[in-house]
Amino acid sequence: MVVLNYRLTVQYDGTDFAGFQVQPGQYTIQGELERALAVLAKEPIRIIGAGRTDAGVHAEGQVVSFKTDALTVPIDRLPIAVNSLLPFSIRVLEAQYVPPDFHARYSAVRKTYRYQVFHGPVADVFLRRFAHWVREPLDWDLMRDAVQQLIGRHDFQGYAATGSSVKTTVRTMYAIEIDTAQRVKTIRFTADGFLYNMVRNIVGTLIEVGQKRRTVESVLEVLENRNRALAGPTAPPVGLVLETVDYA
Amino acid sequence: MVVLNYRLTVQYDGTDFAGFQVQPGQYTIQGELERALAVLAKEPIRIIGAGRTDAGVHAEGQVVSFKTDALTVPIDRLPIAVNSLLPFSIRVLEAQYVPPDFHARYSAVRKTYRYQVFHGPVADVFLRRFAHWVREPLDWDLMRDAVQQLIGRHDFQGYAATGSSVKTTVRTMYAIEIDTAQRVKTIRFTADGFLYNMVRNIVGTLIEVGQKRRTVESVLEVLENRNRALAGPTAPPVGLVLETVDYA
Repeated sequence: MVVLNYRLTVQYDGTDFAGFQVQPGQYTIQGELERALAVLAKEPIRIIGAGRTDAGVHAEGQVVSFKTDALTVPIDRLPIAVNSLLPFSIRVLEAQYVPPDFHARYSAVRKTYRYQVFHGPVADVFLRRFAHWVREPLDWDLMRDAVQQLIGRHDFQGYAATGSSVKTTVRTMYAIEIDTAQRVKTIRFTADGFLYNMVRNIVGTLIEVGQKRRTVESVLEVLENRNRALAGPTAPPVGLVLETVDYA
Repeated sequence: MVVLNYRLTVQYDGTDFAGFQVQPGQYTIQGELERALAVLAKEPIRIIGAGRTDAGVHAEGQVVSFKTDALTVPIDRLPIAVNSLLPFSIRVLEAQYVPPDFHARYSAVRKTYRYQVFHGPVADVFLRRFAHWVREPLDWDLMRDAVQQLIGRHDFQGYAATGSSVKTTVRTMYAIEIDTAQRVKTIRFTADGFLYNMVRNIVGTLIEVGQKRRTVESVLEVLENRNRALAGPTAPPVGLVLETVDYA
């Protein structure tokens, strides 16, 4: 049989997982997807994820790809077949054949992450898995001013986890949109790529701006000094959602 | 010290609980609230809930009452104190002193329950704890016609769980509102009281109307015949939320 290249769009509630990436003895999204696909293929399948989301981080539109000649399920029935073998916290939304050179991670040209914040005197039990609870109100206007400084092509090393090894820490931030119209406030980041912990480090810093514990200008200083120590804390994973991954 | 009567407004995600009511060896909302209050009072406290919600049923505005002379926490600090001792799936929103004759269940004059339905080809991982997933679209106009027949004072025995013993099965349904404007569709019931499983039995029947598996008229026939066997299945607890409890 001919080897085909598959692309799946996957949604998950990351709360109960040790992250996307397979780790021995851990409950992971990749592990569950590979387990389900192996049942259908009757042989091991190794998948590639566009974004290796951390423990507790969610996805609305994660993209995974894999090659196999062993799947006999028609492509339009594949989501239903895989979903029947997955925990309810992971759902395959769509499956399609892609050209042989498609690679979920390397072919991605743009990703959008959303960070969700809930403010109120008491935490909301229905949002506790999906939004970061901040007790005191935030000054979102200051936060809007602060994010403008991050748009464009920059060295984001100051907002990356220390010790991560990547060829370059330069990324292009296409847009950062803050939406406070709903009960859950969102900060949406679109870039050509993200460094490890980059969104959560930016959000942790922005929240300090919203709390007036640091200046709007200090957000730019982190960039200019490329110094993680100048940034705020890493915001918790609970509020982070991988929204979409775009390909050329 | 003087015995005071307390009223708490409580929110919970019922997914992981065996229901509101204390049962030996079970994880219950009442059990967790009583455990937390006993820590503060340094003696056992028995609480009364306005509605004894089932396993998996949620509450935005459950009301509980209890009497004690053993709490020394100021009333405005009581929610924070109790919340610090509760699991994150239960939150006390408000605490107040009430007159000695206030009883969370017997003093209630009106309750509102909301049932949440999500329709789509694939279940939504973020809604799986809070909405009943229906794969096929429903005819909500037929369902709107059907609920009109239930408004007013009726014997709801046909929509009650069989074998439940109550003095009377007559209740007054003040309103049933269907809202389909959002992604999560809701059916909101306001009545002077509800029989055991009444909302879920009505919803299970309404969904069959929406699926055109039974007629609009059959919804009234269940009432008139007082026959549970004529009604549809009991809708799952996941979609049910105790929204508010009103007092005179």
